[in-house]
Amino acid sequence: MNHYPPALVKLIRSLCTLPGIGQKTSERLSLHLLHAPEHEVSAIVSGIADVKKKVRVCSLCFNLTQEERCRICQDPRRDMSVICVVESPADLAAIEKAQVYSGVYHILGGALSPIDGIGPSDIRIAELVKRADPHVVQEIILATRTTVEGQATASYIQTHLKQLPIRISRIASGVPMGGDFQYVDSLTIGQAMERRSDF
Amino acid sequence: MNHYPPALVKLIRSLCTLPGIGQKTSERLSLHLLHAPEHEVSAIVSGIADVKKKVRVCSLCFNLTQEERCRICQDPRRDMSVICVVESPADLAAIEKAQVYSGVYHILGGALSPIDGIGPSDIRIAELVKRADPHVVQEIILATRTTVEGQATASYIQTHLKQLPIRISRIASGVPMGGDFQYVDSLTIGQAMERRSDF
Repeated sequence: MNHYPPALVKLIRSLCTLPGIGQKTSERLSLHLLHAPEHEVSAIVSGIADVKKKVRVCSLCFNLTQEERCRICQDPRRDMSVICVVESPADLAAIEKAQVYSGVYHILGGALSPIDGIGPSDIRIAELVKRADPHVVQEIILATRTTVEGQATASYIQTHLKQLPIRISRIASGVPMGGDFQYVDSLTIGQAMERRSDF
Repeated sequence: MNHYPPALVKLIRSLCTLPGIGQKTSERLSLHLLHAPEHEVSAIVSGIADVKKKVRVCSLCFNLTQEERCRICQDPRRDMSVICVVESPADLAAIEKAQVYSGVYHILGGALSPIDGIGPSDIRIAELVKRADPHVVQEIILATRTTVEGQATASYIQTHLKQLPIRISRIASGVPMGGDFQYVDSLTIGQAMERRSDF
């Protein structure tokens, strides 16, 4: 590290803050950026700035969007009477990729995790309860992850909604336990969605 | 991908141009950057710009530097009579880390590779020949990689310098064949440097 000029050392350190990027990868990326053509580098730099400036969350479902409402909430072909509850926009993207679901979503922005100090008020459970109007919604599919936190979050939501005349279902197992939605193939996600059982 | 807003899709695509960064890693990094604290993100963005603006090559050895001469060429404790020839600044950094070498360097900026169209005039061999003044230089250590290209480059340089009254040596095997300097431990590099043989 000390054998590189200060500006390069600084870049190597800053890239190390990214998830999954260690010292060696950071060195490799920094040296690549140093020699990369200007248009490639400026695409990355302006890309980062643009994302920070333009992307916000949908006022209804909290999916990522550049407008007031996300593309899914704006789509008249989507069934507003079914809400699929997921932890993150990446989980939503994985389910959308499977092309087996035509309802709308609710992004919690995490899962309950007392050990990390994440309680019900830290994720968007109140907003989900507010959306759970029996005149509009017929079913809520709990598609939080199959981790301990995801399971606990699904349980918590179920106990808070079960008195309503709305079907509460849990995405079927088929998604491997302890797994992350992004790394599951579309067929498995399709089956898990199809075989969902009442919670 | 289409389930993310356009600005995010653009960032994901631009990060995919980096070496070793595929679709999934790029998605993960982009989503991290979107939510990362402002100071972390601006450290990365300004770090990239700074590296491109401030870092250049040493006018003597072609190591990376922010000044006219690199830190090693400026250091009066370094032995200017021994030149270690390496392919890249990353290789120099790996050798420096082993703390077994007190001479100076010459960075070729690559290796001969006819298949990729890289000939002797594409790397800094002429600059090395110019530095090989027998009044100053007593030994040139060829520490190009142990790949086919690195070996060929060492051979080529040896044939061009052997008529001079300068010792030409090759770093000892001990560095695994086909290996990359950055992934070799310091002890192995130390041994390879110590057991170097005449070429």
